[in-house]
Amino acid sequence: MSDSQAPRVVVVGGGFAGLQAAMHLRDAQVEVTVIDRRNFHLFQPLTYQVATGALASSEVAYPLRSIFKDCPNVRVLMGEARDFDLEARQVLLESVAGLPDPPPISYEHLIVAGGSHYSYFGHDEWTDVAPQVKSLESALVVRRRILRAFEAAELESDETRRQAWLTFVVVGAGPTGVEMAGQIAELARDTLPGDFRAIDTRSGRILLVEATDRVLTSFPPSLSGKAASALEKLGVTVCLEQMVTEIDHEGVSVKHPEGRVERIPARTVIWAAGVAASSLAARLGELTGAEVDRAGRVTVEPDLSLPGHPEVMALGDMVRVRGPDGSPQALPGVAPVAMQEGRYAARAVISRLEGTPVSPFKYHDKGNLATIGRAHAVADLPWARLSGFPAWLTWLVVHLFYLVGWQNRVLVFMRWLFSFITRGRGGRLITEEPAPPLR
Amino acid sequence: MSDSQAPRVVVVGGGFAGLQAAMHLRDAQVEVTVIDRRNFHLFQPLTYQVATGALASSEVAYPLRSIFKDCPNVRVLMGEARDFDLEARQVLLESVAGLPDPPPISYEHLIVAGGSHYSYFGHDEWTDVAPQVKSLESALVVRRRILRAFEAAELESDETRRQAWLTFVVVGAGPTGVEMAGQIAELARDTLPGDFRAIDTRSGRILLVEATDRVLTSFPPSLSGKAASALEKLGVTVCLEQMVTEIDHEGVSVKHPEGRVERIPARTVIWAAGVAASSLAARLGELTGAEVDRAGRVTVEPDLSLPGHPEVMALGDMVRVRGPDGSPQALPGVAPVAMQEGRYAARAVISRLEGTPVSPFKYHDKGNLATIGRAHAVADLPWARLSGFPAWLTWLVVHLFYLVGWQNRVLVFMRWLFSFITRGRGGRLITEEPAPPLR
Repeated sequence: MSDSQAPRVVVVGGGFAGLQAAMHLRDAQVEVTVIDRRNFHLFQPLTYQVATGALASSEVAYPLRSIFKDCPNVRVLMGEARDFDLEARQVLLESVAGLPDPPPISYEHLIVAGGSHYSYFGHDEWTDVAPQVKSLESALVVRRRILRAFEAAELESDETRRQAWLTFVVVGAGPTGVEMAGQIAELARDTLPGDFRAIDTRSGRILLVEATDRVLTSFPPSLSGKAASALEKLGVTVCLEQMVTEIDHEGVSVKHPEGRVERIPARTVIWAAGVAASSLAARLGELTGAEVDRAGRVTVEPDLSLPGHPEVMALGDMVRVRGPDGSPQALPGVAPVAMQEGRYAARAVISRLEGTPVSPFKYHDKGNLATIGRAHAVADLPWARLSGFPAWLTWLVVHLFYLVGWQNRVLVFMRWLFSFITRGRGGRLITEEPAPPLR
Repeated sequence: MSDSQAPRVVVVGGGFAGLQAAMHLRDAQVEVTVIDRRNFHLFQPLTYQVATGALASSEVAYPLRSIFKDCPNVRVLMGEARDFDLEARQVLLESVAGLPDPPPISYEHLIVAGGSHYSYFGHDEWTDVAPQVKSLESALVVRRRILRAFEAAELESDETRRQAWLTFVVVGAGPTGVEMAGQIAELARDTLPGDFRAIDTRSGRILLVEATDRVLTSFPPSLSGKAASALEKLGVTVCLEQMVTEIDHEGVSVKHPEGRVERIPARTVIWAAGVAASSLAARLGELTGAEVDRAGRVTVEPDLSLPGHPEVMALGDMVRVRGPDGSPQALPGVAPVAMQEGRYAARAVISRLEGTPVSPFKYHDKGNLATIGRAHAVADLPWARLSGFPAWLTWLVVHLFYLVGWQNRVLVFMRWLFSFITRGRGGRLITEEPAPPLR
C-alpha cells in the first residue's frame, strides 16, 4: 500500500497550533496522527463565556473527529502524550477516560503543541479553591461556583456570610481575568437582579486583583486605562499592585504595595494569573538540551525545531522562539501566534519532504483584542487603537470567524443576539455532582 | 405589609406539574414558593437528545428563576424537600450543592410534584453500570459512555473486546428506550462513519431489550409494530419478551421466554425501564393513610388532595388519582398529564380561596407521541394514528412549542435543522472527570 509508506507526521495537541498544523497537511502526501486527551478542539478565547452561562459548552468546543472527517490521511487518537523516544522516533502515550492503552506512535516528523495552563506560583493547594477558566471542565466548575454563590446568598440569613457569598475575586488582569470580571459584573447587574427576592445581586462586589500596575499589560497603557475605567463603570473594583498571599474557602488575603496584608472574605475566587507550559516542553528540553525558562517553556530554533532534531518541532504556548540575534523570544500566548506557528509547521514539513529550504518563522502581529462587557472592548490593531463599541464589533466578528464549524457560528451568534437584546444568559445551570469516573 | 398576609402556597418540584401550578398562580393573591433541588426546569422529553450529543444541556434546561423573573409573588428556593409536618403545615428541607440550610417553609396550601425516576427493580447495584437518561446529569454520563465506547473500539486491538465496545444495550422499550436506541443507531450509522479510521461504526450492534411482547406498550399495537419495524430498519435489534437478569461492566444477561439465559458482551448499557415515584409520595401516604402502590405512587382524591388534607395536593408522576368509581387510576407518566394536573392544582387553590366548589380533575388525552429517528415517529392522536414523516413533524412542532423560552426554541430548531441537513450532531463532547464536589 502506498499510503503506509507515506511519511508519518504526529501532531501532539488539538489546540489552535496543532489543529492548524494538521489541517494544512491534509493535502500533503503524509499520514497524520493528531493526539489529544480530549475528543474536542476547544475555542479557548470564549471559554470564559461558558463559565458565566453566556454560552453552552458544545458551542465553544468541536469534536476533533468531525474536523478531520473528510481528511482520509488524518486520524485522531484519544490519549495523553507522556513522553518521547527521540531515538526510536516514537511518542509514548497513556490512556485517558478509561480507554484502552494506546500503543507508542512512530513518526518521521513530530509536531508538539501541548499548550499551557495557569500556574498557581507554587501554591497548588489553591487549585480547588480558585479554579481556572482554561479547560472546559474547569469553566463548568467556575459556572457552578458563581451561580451557586448567588443561590447561597439568597438563602443565607447572616449578613456577614451573605456578603462573603456576594464577593467575587478574580486573580490576574490579563484578557481572561478582565473578561471574567466584566462578565460577572454584568451577570450581577443586568442578568440576575429580577431573579432573586431576598438579595439585590447588584450589591455584589467583584474584585479584579492584579500584581502589576495596570490591567491588560500586553496592551498599550492608554488602552489599559480605558479598559480599567470601563470595568469600574461596570462595577468592578480594580485592585492594582496587590499580591495574593493566601486563598481558602473563606476568602483571599492580598498584600498591598506598602506591605499591609488585607483579608477579603469571599466565597468565590477565580484564578487567571501566571502561565505554565505543558510539561512536555520541559521534557523536550531535557531530551535535546534546549533551554527551558521559568514558565516551563522550551526554546526552539528559528524554524521551531529542537536543537539537533530538525524532525521535531514544538510550538504554541509551550515555546519561546530563538530570534535572529540568537536570544529566545516569548511571543504572546494568544491564538493567532499558535495558529501561525501551526501553519508554519505544516509548511516546514512539506518543504523538508520536498527538499526545499525552510525560512525562519516570523510572527505577523495582526493585533490584540480583549472584551470587557456588553458592547465594550479594546483593540490594539496595527492600523488603529480602538475602544468601546467599534472594538467590540471587531472582537465579535473576529471570534465568530475563527470559531470552528458553521453550526457553532450560527448558535453563538444567536446566543449573543439574545443576550444583547434581553441581557439574559441562557446557560445558567448548576449541574449537580459529577458523574462517577469512567471505567 | 399586605403581601405577607397573602396565603402562602408552596410548590415542591419544578418539573412540568410544579411549573404549571406556579405559573398559573402568578396573578393570584398568594405568595408562591417553588422548591427544587436544581436551579433549572428540565424539558425531560428531550433529555435523551443530550445523551447522544444532538442537543446541548442548556438547550433543554431553563433556569427556574428566569421563568419567574417577572412574577413578584413567586420565589424560587433551591433545596431538597425531605419531609412534611402536616400539623404545623411546614415543608422540611435539606440543603443541596453546599448551600446554607434552608429553614422550614410554612404554607397554607401545599402542592407536591416530586416526579419519578427509573427503578432498577431492586437491583440498585446496576445504577452505575447502566445509567438512566432521566436527569440532565445522568444524560451527560450516558453521552460520555456512548462516545467513549466508539473511541475505545477505535483503540482496541482485540476483536472480541472491540465488539463488546461496539455493542449497546438499551433496557426498556418505552418512549425513552425507543428514542435512545434510535438515536444511537443514527449516531453509528449516519453521524460517525467518517470519523473513525480503524473501525466501521456501522458494524455497531444496538439491542433494545424489552420484557413485554411489544415496544411502546402505551401505544396501540399497530403503532408498536410500525415503531419496531422502523427501529429494525435503522439497525436496532428489538429483543422482546426478554428479561435482564444481570448487568456488569462486561455485559448483560437476558432470560428468554423459554427460560434460556443469554450473555451479551456489551460495554455500554442504558437503563430506561421501570418507574418509581419520588419518595415524597410514600411519605405523604404514611402521613395521611393514603394508599401507596408498588411503584411508590400515592393515591390522591379526585381533586388531587390527600385524604383529610384538602390543603395538600400531590400530582404528576408520583400519584394515582381516585376515579369516579373510587378505584385508583394511573394516568400515563407523560408531560401533558403533569401539566394539566399542575394547572388544575392552581385553579383548585384559587377556587378554595374564593370559596367556590372544585370539580374533580379530568385528564384530556390529546394524544401520545414518540420519535424513532430522523423524520420518523409514531403519533396516537384522538383524531388519527400517524407514523413516519407526518408523525415526526407533529412531534417536532409540539416539542418546540412546549420548550420553555424563545431562545431555546430557536437554538433547538437550528440544531435540528443542521442535524437534518448534515446528519451531524454538534454536542459530541467527552468531558473529563468531574469537578470536585461543591463545598
